[in-house]
Amino acid sequence: MSAPSVSTHAGPLSYEQAGVRYELIDPLKVAAQRAAAGTAGHLAGHGFAEIAASRGESAYVVDVGPFHLASIVECLGSKVLVADAMKALTGRCHYAAIAQDTIAMAINDLVTVGATPLVVQAYWAAGGSEWFEDHERAEALVAGWKAACDHCKVAWGGGETPALAGIVEAGRIDLAAACTGIVNPKERLSLGEKLGPGDAIVLLASSGIHANGLSLARKLAERLPHGYLTDVAPGLGYGEALLAPTILYAPVTEALWAAGIRVHYAANITGHGWRKLLRHPGAFTYRVHTVPPVPPVLEFIAREAGHDASEAYGTLNMGAGFALFMPAAQAAEAVRVAGRCGVAAWVAGAVEVGPKRLIVEPLGLQFDADALALR
Amino acid sequence: MSAPSVSTHAGPLSYEQAGVRYELIDPLKVAAQRAAAGTAGHLAGHGFAEIAASRGESAYVVDVGPFHLASIVECLGSKVLVADAMKALTGRCHYAAIAQDTIAMAINDLVTVGATPLVVQAYWAAGGSEWFEDHERAEALVAGWKAACDHCKVAWGGGETPALAGIVEAGRIDLAAACTGIVNPKERLSLGEKLGPGDAIVLLASSGIHANGLSLARKLAERLPHGYLTDVAPGLGYGEALLAPTILYAPVTEALWAAGIRVHYAANITGHGWRKLLRHPGAFTYRVHTVPPVPPVLEFIAREAGHDASEAYGTLNMGAGFALFMPAAQAAEAVRVAGRCGVAAWVAGAVEVGPKRLIVEPLGLQFDADALALR
Repeated sequence: MSAPSVSTHAGPLSYEQAGVRYELIDPLKVAAQRAAAGTAGHLAGHGFAEIAASRGESAYVVDVGPFHLASIVECLGSKVLVADAMKALTGRCHYAAIAQDTIAMAINDLVTVGATPLVVQAYWAAGGSEWFEDHERAEALVAGWKAACDHCKVAWGGGETPALAGIVEAGRIDLAAACTGIVNPKERLSLGEKLGPGDAIVLLASSGIHANGLSLARKLAERLPHGYLTDVAPGLGYGEALLAPTILYAPVTEALWAAGIRVHYAANITGHGWRKLLRHPGAFTYRVHTVPPVPPVLEFIAREAGHDASEAYGTLNMGAGFALFMPAAQAAEAVRVAGRCGVAAWVAGAVEVGPKRLIVEPLGLQFDADALALR
Repeated sequence: MSAPSVSTHAGPLSYEQAGVRYELIDPLKVAAQRAAAGTAGHLAGHGFAEIAASRGESAYVVDVGPFHLASIVECLGSKVLVADAMKALTGRCHYAAIAQDTIAMAINDLVTVGATPLVVQAYWAAGGSEWFEDHERAEALVAGWKAACDHCKVAWGGGETPALAGIVEAGRIDLAAACTGIVNPKERLSLGEKLGPGDAIVLLASSGIHANGLSLARKLAERLPHGYLTDVAPGLGYGEALLAPTILYAPVTEALWAAGIRVHYAANITGHGWRKLLRHPGAFTYRVHTVPPVPPVLEFIAREAGHDASEAYGTLNMGAGFALFMPAAQAAEAVRVAGRCGVAAWVAGAVEVGPKRLIVEPLGLQFDADALALR
């Protein structure tokens, strides 16, 4: 069903209002990052060394001799709450998609450093043994997990399925994935040393909200007259649209390497939306001249939450799920390779000499260096 | 304060009564294991292969050419609930110990396959941003995590600190650790191919309950007149004793290798207690002639829960946190090496030809092959 906008009455809805208070978490993050950095020296005792540039990047990388080792653990976040709400409303189980989302959180981060993902471990912490009584849901989680592993050509190594009554809420599940991969050959490392003016920015399509911004999206659902059943486009309900599974980018990054394309840097566009394009520590200007089409669900959220373009692109992926930086001469071919993997892509802009900022020309937007405080 | 036993009035307390219903989780586990096994073939596309014998073992192992890669994710479980209860009762923060427990869950499993742990990733999922407002607790978690990494000579690669309101309960945290390591040289692999009659069983001391059996221990606290403040030994309260951090066994397994000791198989004694000694798939009789001293807290739990020796040793570690199987000629030296690492050890028994069973002679106990249904 279609619904009139209510956002003008309720006022705009910011990400902070949606419940995530970064100012409380950030001091711990900083302390943890500092302590973690202090452990790097242990690798020397084993004959190895960390790749220091990977600290603060999306995956941690260690030089183990013949190749680099990359590892990561990532949480799905609150997207399960949308799946649970939709099950109650429609009876439909979305846990196969949820499984893909969880794996995507880990794998899409891991591939940014140039790694080939090899092994995924499952972390499924339920709010009690009873969670597993819903066999349809449990089987969908298993089937979706397997399918995502198959799509990314990774081995599902195993995992942990604890029942955590008293820690995880009854009827809920906390989903995460750990992933280990290798950067092989080592020259495939894409931590950004080679990034420079003249490089092209290639954007890969998202399928929708992916698994970031869900706190905002859930808060918004409370303000909609028909909640998750509100149409975002003819025949497409809000809840269904939110649950489109995150695109897995590993097949694209593998195909790009195989096609001889040399990625200089990559960013998974998750929290902080397009501000993630500023992730590289260097001082460059990123000028975007082409903007991907915006998935209906993201256009809907931006409109209903009362976001202007700056807040929308600074919070959500707005149609670009992953950014690749590469020699300009290879960009057109990269778009073709991605397309052959079933992922739409655009040569969207270029890296330039200039102060650190992102300029999105078609929208008249600019994000300065301080727009992405936390790497 | 000391308290009289109440168990005779309330009747014995089994692990199943304590709230974990394996019959609900096991079908999912079996389905997941089957699906996971179906993904192994993907490694061939990368030029690698899984070590099939690692399926169902404590860590997943992949042959990546020059060495094997091992990876795992493990959950702490419900021990945080004891720490939270003790904080409310005594004001004392135990999160440094809790951090060590979490890392131990992953690392003690990883080393069973012969791997040297290299990188740990932190998974700290809080029930809301507010969890991080208690700075003493957050700093203890960071400091304890760092100290455990230092003790095991692993690099802390990074991690994930999501705020999961609506999934994790308010005021709680779901802690897990992912660990990646390598088996190097490959001959260090200890998945049990070399295990055979004549091998010695060496047991390494535990510090107490470690992080398994906490559901039972928490349930028991409800039945004690002074709860967690009940004395288990003069001057040692039940809650304090439960929170003794899990021993980290990686320094021992590293030192054993360096000393030329060739471990044929290893078992981390966690859930299912000493039944874990039956973990190897082969058909051998394990005869134990020497039993380690039982930590006061475990003796207390067994007594107060009304457990006989069979239920106690079949549920809790009863003083043996880790089991090593090795050539008999090396066992005495292994005990010395462990001692130099600060971990008490005993040549506890031997592997014999015979039907699959564990015989604990000093206690007149026997566990048959079907005692450990789930590997």
